[in-house]
Amino acid sequence: MFIQIDLESGEAIYRQLCRQIILQIASDVLREGDSLPSVRDLADEIGINMHTVNKAYAILREEGFLTVDRRNGAVVDIDYEKIHAEEELKDTLKLALAKARCRRVSKEEIHRLLDDLYEEYDK
Amino acid sequence: MFIQIDLESGEAIYRQLCRQIILQIASDVLREGDSLPSVRDLADEIGINMHTVNKAYAILREEGFLTVDRRNGAVVDIDYEKIHAEEELKDTLKLALAKARCRRVSKEEIHRLLDDLYEEYDK
Repeated sequence: MFIQIDLESGEAIYRQLCRQIILQIASDVLREGDSLPSVRDLADEIGINMHTVNKAYAILREEGFLTVDRRNGAVVDIDYEKIHAEEELKDTLKLALAKARCRRVSKEEIHRLLDDLYEEYDK
Repeated sequence: MFIQIDLESGEAIYRQLCRQIILQIASDVLREGDSLPSVRDLADEIGINMHTVNKAYAILREEGFLTVDRRNGAVVDIDYEKIHAEEELKDTLKLALAKARCRRVSKEEIHRLLDDLYEEYDK
């Protein structure tokens, strides 16, 4: 698994980790049933603390992207029924849109941005 | 200013505060030039620590929504030239879309959601 952590970023490392794993699932680099590296391996590979990897995996499990068990470790396993999925998306979009509106980004520009981003995934 | 803090929420209080202020700016409840309550008043009003309000104001200033000075306190003052605005929006949307894709929300659904959210603001 290719993970690149930016230590200069203001974004916490566990968040960077979560984001990159989610982006890899969204773009089919990681697929349903794929195993993630063990906490120890991933921590070693990217040179960060095991607790940080643990925290990221725990959040991804909580959010319905992974299951984690002792035998198989972390496995991509999307929980489509996760109750707050749509609501969370709505909240996230709501804030992103609010910021965009404050900055006078038009609705059309955002629709276009959305299409562009989707296209990137479908490549 | 009407702010409602959910102490049961997993979202940090300063983040709730930032989000609500941004939503109020986006929906024209707060307008360019409007003064926000002083840190002390707002902290008293919603029953939270002054440091928390300070942190929220500092982030909003950093992100280009407010200016803060000793004489006028915090004032809504959008910095349209804020360099990372578009980039930040793109990053936020990218993650929101990635989550949506993982959960098989279609592009059309997201475009619709976006229109719905915009309509709410324009009411």
